[in-house]
Formats: sequence, structure tokens, C-alpha cells
Amino acid sequence: MPLPAQPGPQDRLDVVLVAPRNPLNIGAVARAMANFGLARLTVVAPWAPHWREARSAVGAPRLLADAVEAATLPEAVAAATLVIGTGSLTYRKPEQPVVSLPDLAPLVASELHRGGRVVLVFGPEKHGLTREDLSYCHILVTIPTDACQPSMNLGQAVAVCLYELAARALPPPEPSAEPQSELRPVPAAAPSQDLDLLAGLVEEAMTAAGYSPSAMRQANRHDLRLLLRRLSLNPADLRRTLGLFRRILWRLRRSAASQSNPDD
Amino acid sequence: MPLPAQPGPQDRLDVVLVAPRNPLNIGAVARAMANFGLARLTVVAPWAPHWREARSAVGAPRLLADAVEAATLPEAVAAATLVIGTGSLTYRKPEQPVVSLPDLAPLVASELHRGGRVVLVFGPEKHGLTREDLSYCHILVTIPTDACQPSMNLGQAVAVCLYELAARALPPPEPSAEPQSELRPVPAAAPSQDLDLLAGLVEEAMTAAGYSPSAMRQANRHDLRLLLRRLSLNPADLRRTLGLFRRILWRLRRSAASQSNPDD
Repeated sequence: MPLPAQPGPQDRLDVVLVAPRNPLNIGAVARAMANFGLARLTVVAPWAPHWREARSAVGAPRLLADAVEAATLPEAVAAATLVIGTGSLTYRKPEQPVVSLPDLAPLVASELHRGGRVVLVFGPEKHGLTREDLSYCHILVTIPTDACQPSMNLGQAVAVCLYELAARALPPPEPSAEPQSELRPVPAAAPSQDLDLLAGLVEEAMTAAGYSPSAMRQANRHDLRLLLRRLSLNPADLRRTLGLFRRILWRLRRSAASQSNPDD
Repeated sequence: MPLPAQPGPQDRLDVVLVAPRNPLNIGAVARAMANFGLARLTVVAPWAPHWREARSAVGAPRLLADAVEAATLPEAVAAATLVIGTGSLTYRKPEQPVVSLPDLAPLVASELHRGGRVVLVFGPEKHGLTREDLSYCHILVTIPTDACQPSMNLGQAVAVCLYELAARALPPPEPSAEPQSELRPVPAAAPSQDLDLLAGLVEEAMTAAGYSPSAMRQANRHDLRLLLRRLSLNPADLRRTLGLFRRILWRLRRSAASQSNPDD
């Protein structure tokens, strides 16, 4: 795989798994990496020989095929300028700075910005990284989990870390095709004058339906104005609602007319 | 399980899985919920009968045992004031506001702050939520994934969403004894089941007023569900609107009856 002269930030953020036991978890890690646009995985001393065949690597078989197998952690992180260990603090007294995941992005972004190479290191399923492993890490990141159940599944922990860094430390993805235009923003609200038009119509319908005693009409008008403004109707909602109330009013008036003029 | 008089924010943030196929994924979701301090899971129409026994629910067997099984999505979200659908935009043109996950926390925090009940809805593994499912959602949240591989594993997608909300929308684990402030919060939105009640009534009024040709009725029902969710009606707005439509309907029917039976 020929690398460009200056690899982009995504190509300088790697994942290293130390002694993973379950190939399904390795596949899940590969899938999460593909989801968040990363490509470089290193597996240190995997337990199962056929880990590259994990069926859980949905959409990421190539990533798994290209993964590097290393014998030791120092070998796997040799080229890194910032090595970030992961784990909980439950059984361990950390010997390096500890950062909570929501605070990690600025550190990673600045390291990538100045051309560094960042590696996220995940330990084996049961016990996590050892004290020896952690001695190769510059910092330790913890995912803020509930004290009653701190231990996460490996594939889920990796997904959470990569989501956080992809969203807040990496530059936004290339504007391929037209992803942005697919996003439908909350549409602008209908202008005030149109709300007043609707308010008038609803009030007429209330009167025609005998809903609003005349003594209450002033108070209802006030409340109706407030209510319509709380609703943040967009222009299309408003057109539809106007249409419905026009129709209702027409029907109510027609029936009132036919009742007062039974000869019609 | 006796609930306290005012359940805390964690107890008003629920997860709903629609038609999940693989019990291992349901277990993984339960595990992630326990990791992030949530307890309330509802499973709609699960495919496998023995889903409660999923071994992947490490540390969360109790949560799985307490999970609610519902027949339909509207039933599962009946009490919710903010229903958030999840999914990618790959195959779908969204009909409601779309929010990217990194921007979701403020919306959820404010709904929880004013006493609302928030539900995150996840679709089945293969196809995600249907257009019909999404019509019960106020907003659609997307996880910013790579355009080449947008489809996430269900358990990983849930973990990512819950991480984001636990870190940025829920209060930190330590609950402080004193209430936040004397400020009176904006009232919570009306629950989903009441919106459906109103939708039914509006539809009857449309029919009685001859507004909706029968050929359009299915489409109108769908659009009406979306419209009512955009409005963020509060419970008082809703009572008032229900009252008005009941009155309109009664009038329309009375006049229809008197026209069809001119001897009355």
C-alpha cells in the first residue's frame, strides 16, 4: 500500500490490540475502524491463529487482511509519537497522566496537527493492559462508565473511543457526493403574520363550533396566540393547517346555514 | 421495582430495540446500558424467543430480565416526550429534523431537565428503522461515520450513543442533594400516546369535513404523525387542542346526521 508523502491525520491514528483472545472481537474492532474512517490495525500476540478470518469484520475484510501482526507492544508502537493506553482505574494505580475520554480530543488533534503519529492501545478482554504494557504509554484514557459496571466489551470500547476522536479530533470527512445536502435542517418557522392568519381562522372555527363562549373569547384569543407561537410551525405545516381549518369552517357554516334555513 | 416520586434523569432515558434479530446483540446492548448507568430497555417484537438468556449481557443479566417486551413501537414509546430515531441517511430521505450525534446532548439534557422522558430507538440489524417506525420519532440522530462504511454493528452503535449522552447530557454520577435552582423549567412535552390520540381525532375531523379523500388517508396519517411531533405541544396545549377537535367533530357529525336524516 503506497503511502502519500505526507499521510493525512486518519493515516496517523492507529489502533493496537494487545493479546486479544476472541477473533470476533478483533473483527468488531476492524468494523468500527472502517466505520470511523481508520485503516491501520496492529494485533500483538493474538491468541487465536485464524483471527484474520473473523466474520464480524463486516465491511472491513480488507482492513483485517492488511493488519500488522507484532510480537510485542514496544514493536507495535515503535513509530508512534503519542501512545494512549486505555482501561479502567478499578484495579490499578496509574503511573502516568489520566485523561477522561471526553477530554482527549484536543490532545490528539494537536499531536496530529503537528505531524505526529498517535496510537490507541487496548488490552486483552479479561484483564486489560498490564503495568508493563502501560509503561509504553504516554497517557491513560478512561471511558467514564458507571462504577457498578465499569468493564466494557472490547469492540464497544473501541467504537466509543474512535467515535469520540473521529467526531472531535479528526478533520471532517471529504464532502463526497452530497452528504451535507441530505441533512435536513430544522426548517425556518412560519412568519408571525401567517400565525395570526391561522389564529383568526381557528377562532372562527371555535365560534362556529360553539366551542368558545363569547365571554371567554378575549382570553382564548390571547392563549391561542401564545400556543401557536410555542408550536414552531414551519411554512408547510402552516399551509396544511390553514387548509384543514378552512375546510372545517366551510362545513360548519354550511351546516349552520342549512339548519337556520331548512328550506334550502 | 418501586420508582421514587421524581425519577432521576437516568431513569427517564430509555432504549428501545425494534425487531432485533440476534440475541447476542440484545445482550451487548444490555451490557452497554449497564456500563453507562441506564436500566430501562424495551424490546419490540424480538425475532428470537430466548433473547433474555443472551450470554453477551455481561454484568447486565438483571437488566435483561427486567426488560419490557412490546408488540409495537407506538406502544413502546407511549410515555415518551422525546423519541429519537437512529440510523444512517444512506437509503432514506428523512422527514424530520436530523441531528448529528455530537450535537444531540443539549437537546436531551434540556428535555430531561424539564422532567421529560427520552427514548432512543434502534432498528433491526439489516435494514434499520422503517419510514413507518420513524414517523413515531421527533428527530433522527445519525452517527458521523465514514461514507464508505456507514453501517455499524447494533451493540457498537448503542454504546456510542449512550457514551455520548452519559458524558454530555446526563449529570455526573455523584448526585448533589440540593435542587438545581428556583427557576421553573419549561414544561415537558406531551407524551407520544397523547399525540396519537390527537392524531386519531384530527383524522376523524378531516374525514367528517371531507378534507381527506380516502385515497390520501394513509399518506395523511403518516404526515400528521410527523407534524404533531414537530410541534412540541405541552400537556396543556394538547388538552386544549383535543377539546377543540372533539367539539368540531361533534358538530360536524351532528350536521351530517341531520342532513342524512332530514326528518330529525
